[in-house]
Amino acid sequence: MHKPCTYARVKYVTTEARSVPNKRDIILEATIRVLRERGLSGLKVEEVARQAEVGKGTVYLYFEDKQDLLKALVEYHTQRFYADAAEITASERPFRERLERLLARRLAFVDEWRGLWAAVAREANPKGQKAWLTGLHQHYQGILERFVASGVASGELRPDLDVELTAAALAAFGCSPQLDFPREPYIQQLAEVFMKGVCA
Amino acid sequence: MHKPCTYARVKYVTTEARSVPNKRDIILEATIRVLRERGLSGLKVEEVARQAEVGKGTVYLYFEDKQDLLKALVEYHTQRFYADAAEITASERPFRERLERLLARRLAFVDEWRGLWAAVAREANPKGQKAWLTGLHQHYQGILERFVASGVASGELRPDLDVELTAAALAAFGCSPQLDFPREPYIQQLAEVFMKGVCA
Repeated sequence: MHKPCTYARVKYVTTEARSVPNKRDIILEATIRVLRERGLSGLKVEEVARQAEVGKGTVYLYFEDKQDLLKALVEYHTQRFYADAAEITASERPFRERLERLLARRLAFVDEWRGLWAAVAREANPKGQKAWLTGLHQHYQGILERFVASGVASGELRPDLDVELTAAALAAFGCSPQLDFPREPYIQQLAEVFMKGVCA
Repeated sequence: MHKPCTYARVKYVTTEARSVPNKRDIILEATIRVLRERGLSGLKVEEVARQAEVGKGTVYLYFEDKQDLLKALVEYHTQRFYADAAEITASERPFRERLERLLARRLAFVDEWRGLWAAVAREANPKGQKAWLTGLHQHYQGILERFVASGVASGELRPDLDVELTAAALAAFGCSPQLDFPREPYIQQLAEVFMKGVCA
């Protein structure tokens, strides 16, 4: 299975080798468009190939079957979110500002996948699902632990916080409500409750 | 479609009428057992009837088809959770104690349905899903708004809280993490962060 190259590796590979991750990404982008238009039951490899402007055989160069394609799709989108989350939380900005940016990015990710993610994940990996999803989430938990620890280190957060459990609470806190509240005041309120709580 | 009777109504109805919601509930309980054992793809009305110890025709007296059965199942379990949430949050206990009980019940509900709820909800109501789920969630949002308002009224919560957005934040906060933390300290931490925040 091809993995996306890191930038460090791409620097030194030939033009042809560099085109490999790009075509893979193009196919994954086409897959999400087909999913949005036709839903999971309407997802056909032929249509993915057509939208990606490649032959059907090319799709099978990168992905064993539809299940493998869906698994790669979940990982591709999740890892793009994690990369953004890592960048946002590791910046030099004040903790509160990083928190609001993280919540905004997280809610956009949840919105993007709402109603689709669980179905895709289930179809992508019906057997080893729990271990696979736990592995993905463990990575996010690590990002959030470093974020909380950075806030403790800078003195913006309480020194007695349990870093691991606070990170887990923050992960839970980033779920979007089923109701459509105006996004900006909702994010402000989430950040305010997380930072200062609700006690009188 | 039969609806479960409220206790107030059941008091005054005949034995035969009282047996109606019971048989319906027995079928719904059998459905969840079959789902747990065989998954959504293995759910057959015959097997539900066998486990409920009724004829297949009896299932169709209460539910039009499998889709109707699944929709009723989601509503049955969701409304049982909401009834518990309403009872917990409306009690006379201190706000913090009610909050911890609510979070414990909420996480148990999420655990019970993890990986199954979204798939069942999708199959149960593929077309009107968003409006249907929003309607269900609106009820929970109402319970949480009354809960937050009661804490403001008693002076346990800040008087300047936006009740609607704080309730929405609390709804988001009740999501279970994908990782298995020991439940009791996790609930304590959720409650602590919600009540007092993380600021230094």
